[in-house]
Amino acid sequence: MSGNTLGKLFTFTSFGESHGAAIGGIVDGCPPGLALSAEDLQIDLDRRKPGTSRHVTQRQEADMVEILSGVFEGKTTGAPIGLLIRNTDQRSQDYSKIMDTFRPGHADYTYTQKYGVRDYRGGGRSSARETAARVAAGAIAKKWLKERYGVSVRGYMSQLGEVDIPFESWDVVNGNPFFSPNVSILPTLEDYLDKIRAERDSVGARITVVAEHVPVGLGEPIFDRLDAEIAYAMMSINAVKGVEIGAGFSSVAQRGSVHSDEMTPQGFVTNHAGGILGGISTGQEIRVNVALKPTSSIPQERRSIDKNGNAVTMQTTGRHDPCVGVRATPIVEAMLAMVLMDHALRHRAQNADVQCATPKII
Amino acid sequence: MSGNTLGKLFTFTSFGESHGAAIGGIVDGCPPGLALSAEDLQIDLDRRKPGTSRHVTQRQEADMVEILSGVFEGKTTGAPIGLLIRNTDQRSQDYSKIMDTFRPGHADYTYTQKYGVRDYRGGGRSSARETAARVAAGAIAKKWLKERYGVSVRGYMSQLGEVDIPFESWDVVNGNPFFSPNVSILPTLEDYLDKIRAERDSVGARITVVAEHVPVGLGEPIFDRLDAEIAYAMMSINAVKGVEIGAGFSSVAQRGSVHSDEMTPQGFVTNHAGGILGGISTGQEIRVNVALKPTSSIPQERRSIDKNGNAVTMQTTGRHDPCVGVRATPIVEAMLAMVLMDHALRHRAQNADVQCATPKII
Amino acid sequence: MSGNTLGKLFTFTSFGESHGAAIGGIVDGCPPGLALSAEDLQIDLDRRKPGTSRHVTQRQEADMVEILSGVFEGKTTGAPIGLLIRNTDQRSQDYSKIMDTFRPGHADYTYTQKYGVRDYRGGGRSSARETAARVAAGAIAKKWLKERYGVSVRGYMSQLGEVDIPFESWDVVNGNPFFSPNVSILPTLEDYLDKIRAERDSVGARITVVAEHVPVGLGEPIFDRLDAEIAYAMMSINAVKGVEIGAGFSSVAQRGSVHSDEMTPQGFVTNHAGGILGGISTGQEIRVNVALKPTSSIPQERRSIDKNGNAVTMQTTGRHDPCVGVRATPIVEAMLAMVLMDHALRHRAQNADVQCATPKII
Amino acid sequence: MSGNTLGKLFTFTSFGESHGAAIGGIVDGCPPGLALSAEDLQIDLDRRKPGTSRHVTQRQEADMVEILSGVFEGKTTGAPIGLLIRNTDQRSQDYSKIMDTFRPGHADYTYTQKYGVRDYRGGGRSSARETAARVAAGAIAKKWLKERYGVSVRGYMSQLGEVDIPFESWDVVNGNPFFSPNVSILPTLEDYLDKIRAERDSVGARITVVAEHVPVGLGEPIFDRLDAEIAYAMMSINAVKGVEIGAGFSSVAQRGSVHSDEMTPQGFVTNHAGGILGGISTGQEIRVNVALKPTSSIPQERRSIDKNGNAVTMQTTGRHDPCVGVRATPIVEAMLAMVLMDHALRHRAQNADVQCATPKII
Repeated sequence: MSGNTLGKLFTFTSFGESHGAAIGGIVDGCPPGLALSAEDLQIDLDRRKPGTSRHVTQRQEADMVEILSGVFEGKTTGAPIGLLIRNTDQRSQDYSKIMDTFRPGHADYTYTQKYGVRDYRGGGRSSARETAARVAAGAIAKKWLKERYGVSVRGYMSQLGEVDIPFESWDVVNGNPFFSPNVSILPTLEDYLDKIRAERDSVGARITVVAEHVPVGLGEPIFDRLDAEIAYAMMSINAVKGVEIGAGFSSVAQRGSVHSDEMTPQGFVTNHAGGILGGISTGQEIRVNVALKPTSSIPQERRSIDKNGNAVTMQTTGRHDPCVGVRATPIVEAMLAMVLMDHALRHRAQNADVQCATPKII
Repeated sequence: MSGNTLGKLFTFTSFGESHGAAIGGIVDGCPPGLALSAEDLQIDLDRRKPGTSRHVTQRQEADMVEILSGVFEGKTTGAPIGLLIRNTDQRSQDYSKIMDTFRPGHADYTYTQKYGVRDYRGGGRSSARETAARVAAGAIAKKWLKERYGVSVRGYMSQLGEVDIPFESWDVVNGNPFFSPNVSILPTLEDYLDKIRAERDSVGARITVVAEHVPVGLGEPIFDRLDAEIAYAMMSINAVKGVEIGAGFSSVAQRGSVHSDEMTPQGFVTNHAGGILGGISTGQEIRVNVALKPTSSIPQERRSIDKNGNAVTMQTTGRHDPCVGVRATPIVEAMLAMVLMDHALRHRAQNADVQCATPKII
Repeated sequence: MSGNTLGKLFTFTSFGESHGAAIGGIVDGCPPGLALSAEDLQIDLDRRKPGTSRHVTQRQEADMVEILSGVFEGKTTGAPIGLLIRNTDQRSQDYSKIMDTFRPGHADYTYTQKYGVRDYRGGGRSSARETAARVAAGAIAKKWLKERYGVSVRGYMSQLGEVDIPFESWDVVNGNPFFSPNVSILPTLEDYLDKIRAERDSVGARITVVAEHVPVGLGEPIFDRLDAEIAYAMMSINAVKGVEIGAGFSSVAQRGSVHSDEMTPQGFVTNHAGGILGGISTGQEIRVNVALKPTSSIPQERRSIDKNGNAVTMQTTGRHDPCVGVRATPIVEAMLAMVLMDHALRHRAQNADVQCATPKII
Repeated sequence: MSGNTLGKLFTFTSFGESHGAAIGGIVDGCPPGLALSAEDLQIDLDRRKPGTSRHVTQRQEADMVEILSGVFEGKTTGAPIGLLIRNTDQRSQDYSKIMDTFRPGHADYTYTQKYGVRDYRGGGRSSARETAARVAAGAIAKKWLKERYGVSVRGYMSQLGEVDIPFESWDVVNGNPFFSPNVSILPTLEDYLDKIRAERDSVGARITVVAEHVPVGLGEPIFDRLDAEIAYAMMSINAVKGVEIGAGFSSVAQRGSVHSDEMTPQGFVTNHAGGILGGISTGQEIRVNVALKPTSSIPQERRSIDKNGNAVTMQTTGRHDPCVGVRATPIVEAMLAMVLMDHALRHRAQNADVQCATPKII
């Protein structure tokens, strides 16, 4: 593989499979002096963990994280931070069916072709369980960004299947299992998802994530732009099929006279750019949309092939989320936070001495 | 910056500004033995170059590329390939207006804040002129992919502003200035863009790019997935605000029973995944959409600030594309080709010995 | 830090402090299909571990390694391999002396200046204890190199303080605590080191490491040469102050007519180059010398400063090796093996298709 | 290759062959605001260039460098700096002899085996001519280090063949063709080298390079230590076979009571460490020795093989340095400067906020 590291200066290297001994990773490049404890990471892990409502998988995982290194007397030392989350609810179930066949929409076929072998237990390395480690690492980035720059990174569900979710308030997002920013729509969402589940089907979701108080200047053109690295990080999440910055695909039909955000001494007038111009943060709110496909594991008969290439039909049983997007909000936040922290460090490396005569307009 | 290198094994490092002495770059990691000449690169450079129709900027640049190294007796040697394109049509115009103000929608403000200084001549480093060097480098990747694996990478315009462009045929794409895969719609596109230009405005575009005959197995989970690296490469192009793989944002409203592509011994039944599962190519066609925002430079009065932070109004004159998407197709192809070549090399590094008992279904 | 990863395609990312919860790391990029168990790693860990003779530190660490991921049904899957070694003999001793002062020859002063804080327990991150994780990771590389290419990587002590150790036989190296390739000299070494210890002093060592049956062609000029990456890897080991390839510093006084190795159809006539020409392996034996400085921790009164910058005298007590070089051989082997494996993967990425008409002469 | 980039934040990517169109490279990551012109680079290029005395090759190369980008109105902008040096004295000589045979001590055999093809004109990519581009890039690092931190990086020849050169004064180093810090020994050196050349032979050299006023704290343990990266950079120079930091190989026979440098409030008492402890700069002078092997090209009959594997004898004629070490001093300085600059940037990325209560003792 050798593709399990994210970032350049603030890096996260991940390991672990769904039904192996543990998942976890190493955060390297966190500056010294940050107050940090396992409890700081547990907050987001608990937001992501399974089994907390009827709308998500019933797998029971405490997702307790242990910090193995890099923290001394309650503060980071600058040394790498080892993170360990033991798997506890690996069912010793009968894998005989899926070990020999390839579930549609999953990575079973591609892993087998690429590696010759495949850890078929619960999806192995390709399982979304791996994202728990990202959430733990992302919590470190979130905390540092908040303390050092006052940056907040938070997301919400903006669409569930066909249901668009109008934004109302950040205050309610963490109070419902969907991370919906709108309470009046909750009954609709619940009914909708219950119906999907009753139909033995699944559905996709769109998540919106916003970073506020990001300093102007983050991003390293022309390839390591902030938007390019955000796109990479988001698309690396299981099930993500699309990424938009600011106006995204709607900018195709916009006029330049509308899209290009005017400036006044009091700030930008609009934010169609999503807080990034030329790959560099403007100081405005950074706004990102991601599209998550419907869960591939559904209890319906579907056509596939077995390991010998023969036609089979199969249905996926077991514990699955009817919409993988329901638990995706903390993951999306973690990815954005890690990218921003990496770029905050990269920026000051090369531009620590910069004196800019022009006042910031935000 | 230190963000001007793309790729891990097949790398492209870029340099140059819009009105500096030259643009170019270094391609490192091209295997030895590939027949290569400047003419091979010129084909795509000519497809991208300005001044070829009334629908693009009238800047005259021959965009002649010189290969400085890495090719001996007509073949690559494995040594880095230096690429040089001299700028020839830098107008010694009066920059006094834009040097002291920040054009809306451009990177002028962010570059100034980040670096303290800014090469204001024609956008400097943030100009789309830089993409010519990408196209030259991408042509190397295209050629190698074609010769080594039979891969073809080609794109087309699928939407111009509000006008959706139904795909009809690859054969016509290179025969019109829009890279439209549909000739009957050309009068509509021309009238539409003439009208936009007459209104002193600009508009966005959506480009679709497709890679065929990609081997199964490319992509390095869990971060350096093929889709993640494609998203990074596409979002690194000037003006791109969104990236989709396969069904993209439409997968949000899809059911799992629709989206998850079934398999038979004769192949995948559908391709909602866009040819990538778990971050690894399936062997199907890889299908990517990118959204380009409207050109920011329009001859309308717009509000901005000057370098001292005072309110000003300004309009951008000069030679500009009314839709930056019109010339974007060769750029998008170049980016996809470079990502695929990088991953073809990475794949065989780690999996050269893999024996897979399961037959390929494509 | 963000400097805790070694390698480009076969990578090892390390974490852990001397007296923290654990040390370990993540090996990423190991090809799938390699038979691997914790026992494979334990062999070299046992060769390196403390407390096995009177000539090394008496700290008791079982150094039992747990493989957390990346191995399924006894074989690697291509997924990252998590490695965990719990620390067990961290003494809850009184650190009040060293926490406020800087031990001469140690990294106490530089870590404090760099990070502002320092994990003072047993040297924290700068302790040689961290090298146990390297040895575990290196054992994976050793096994793969042996099975895939027949490469052997092995080292020996070639000098202890003033005592030069003539090479006699590989067979005896693992049968004595010094990794001496010469049994007749053992009484001399033991007496010498006993005397050093009795004098409350320490001494350095030179280790020689040799790789045999390395394929011709490994190394990526002009920076990532095989010799350059070996030098990097060796100098990254605690206490190493010098690295030589082949004739090393003695080549300064050599004539070209002596140093330059002639070739015949039967092979190279000599090997002053140490198996590397132009940064690329020749197929001959690769031969590397490293110089390790004497242990800095000695029970003598020495001058230093305290954390407020005041003059102090201090002596280092506790459990220390009188010569850090005594246990260095497995570490040096691990580093060479990891570099070779990384380059074996890199080589085939770019040169898998190369047909060379010239026969190999080794 | 894909091994032609040095550094992580301050990077230099190199291209070019000895007898191709040009050599050069791209410097990425130089902070904005540094006053820079081609003349700044020419100073060191002129120190390295051939043909300036009878003790070096008589090839005539002006080595004029053109800055293609990244500098605007006399200052760096933060954009990548393109560097171009045209080759002018490529002789259209008869290569028929060396194109089919492998010169002993050169990379001819290894390049052919690795790449299948080889640019045989003057050594192609493996020629030391490539180091001119390094010198140009290193001059940028030198200038930035001097202006930003007051760091000076300078070297001298400390041994020529069997002749040790005692250090006397920096003032005389640039006044003689050997970069000898000692004028009284110059007649000896000249006679010695004349004799070597008369004997149709060559000899090696040792170069010492010293950096003064380096800030404490540079270096990223545990792999990207400052000493490890210096070792890598030095060993990447053609002909280098050994690297020492501080006491180097002589530390093997030292006692800990001698080697470990004591500290007082007035500073370190000694500097056996060579200015680096735990991989981090101490603030003392950084001191590095490198061993260069004798020139491989000598006009003596030597045994080799041809491209079909048959035994041949050959002698290398043409224009060659009798000691490649004679012109190596500016190269060694360039490499050290680039490593230091990269680490100065990396250090402030992660430690810009560090407050250290302990006063610096240098």
